[in-house]
Amino acid sequence: MIKVVFFDLDDTLVDTSRLAEMARRNAIENMVRHGLPVDFDTAYQELLELISEYGSNFSRHFDYLLRRLDLPSNPKWVAAGVIAYHNTKFAYLRTVKGVRRVLLDLQRAGYRLGIITDGDPIKQWEKILRLELDAYFDEVFISDYLGVKKPHRKIFEKALRKMKVEPREAVMVGDRLYSDIYGAKQVGMKTVWFRYGKYADRELEYLEYADSTVNSLDEILDIVRGLNLEEGEERSDKEVHAD
Amino acid sequence: MIKVVFFDLDDTLVDTSRLAEMARRNAIENMVRHGLPVDFDTAYQELLELISEYGSNFSRHFDYLLRRLDLPSNPKWVAAGVIAYHNTKFAYLRTVKGVRRVLLDLQRAGYRLGIITDGDPIKQWEKILRLELDAYFDEVFISDYLGVKKPHRKIFEKALRKMKVEPREAVMVGDRLYSDIYGAKQVGMKTVWFRYGKYADRELEYLEYADSTVNSLDEILDIVRGLNLEEGEERSDKEVHAD
Repeated sequence: MIKVVFFDLDDTLVDTSRLAEMARRNAIENMVRHGLPVDFDTAYQELLELISEYGSNFSRHFDYLLRRLDLPSNPKWVAAGVIAYHNTKFAYLRTVKGVRRVLLDLQRAGYRLGIITDGDPIKQWEKILRLELDAYFDEVFISDYLGVKKPHRKIFEKALRKMKVEPREAVMVGDRLYSDIYGAKQVGMKTVWFRYGKYADRELEYLEYADSTVNSLDEILDIVRGLNLEEGEERSDKEVHAD
Repeated sequence: MIKVVFFDLDDTLVDTSRLAEMARRNAIENMVRHGLPVDFDTAYQELLELISEYGSNFSRHFDYLLRRLDLPSNPKWVAAGVIAYHNTKFAYLRTVKGVRRVLLDLQRAGYRLGIITDGDPIKQWEKILRLELDAYFDEVFISDYLGVKKPHRKIFEKALRKMKVEPREAVMVGDRLYSDIYGAKQVGMKTVWFRYGKYADRELEYLEYADSTVNSLDEILDIVRGLNLEEGEERSDKEVHAD
């Protein structure tokens, strides 16, 4: 019997990639408006390259952008970027469509809920608290806080232990086939791939680890119920054979 | 003749201290609301002590607060503090009463304007751009960008050189008797002490370096005009004697 449903955070509960794209575009636009002597497309492409090299949690994106564009250091342009970036992030932080409904339905149906996510612990908690998602979840597991990252089996094992369930009593829902689906499957959890956002067509070599694939979170409750039914049938089958 | 008026930024143009106090109080309140097991006053006093030791630009205030309170590291509480702190700073950033009026009046009267401030360049530009103060000023001089801090004479000399005026053609307006008033006087500028905020009764041993003291920014235009009149009279006196 499934007792716990775990969710990934970024691009599963929170619409992170879309927000990040808006924030980056607005940042470049505001830098150009405040005198950055480069056209929007050139600067935006350079920023995307920089982020793919240094990662999205690098704290000096705009500083480095100027260096890459052979421009002198200029705190006014950097501030213009930072302001627009933060304003966008504050104003447009949203859950993925259907999140609150599915969480409420799962809770009402008696399942306990957890989050298993990578990323900076304080930034991840900022998203959870700003969106007031914390009330839905019994536990939140963040890799950078635990010292181990998805898909390493240890983060899933820690989560299962803390929630006091066996792997087969837990489902993992996430948008990444590698970190979420392959990771959870390794330890014996049930897996639901949420085909959404920029990973919708990536890491398909791990597709075999997904027990189910959904295009909308609305489907989750039925799938979890389905898993319980299947198990019930298997058990009945065994009982029949045992007769 | 006075040609340029320089202003300090924090607690002269921008109501920084009051904002910081509100932001810190709201941060602690939100941390307590999210489970910080300490009463408001204890945590707030500890935060103030920490800030006085590590400075207000230290980036790990809330982390260190937990350590000082003998509490385990907890990214949820830190995030609660960060959220409330930033929300307050975004929502309540204000100019000091009368700022826009005096800047406009000085501009109309033909004076050029500059900012000479200490602090992190990006954070200072963030305040300037968020409040849309940049349009009033010809130049902004920020110590951490120039590598020299008020009251060092070099920052004032750099500013005078860039604005192409002699020291006696410039006035410095600021809330700190030591960094603003003593600093500017050293190089021969005229000085107006704005007695405001937490420095209103501090560093009084430097009071002799203030040519004038004001309790409201509304008085600045008259004072600058007065300085020009005095100089005019001195010149007439000399002319009379020369006859």
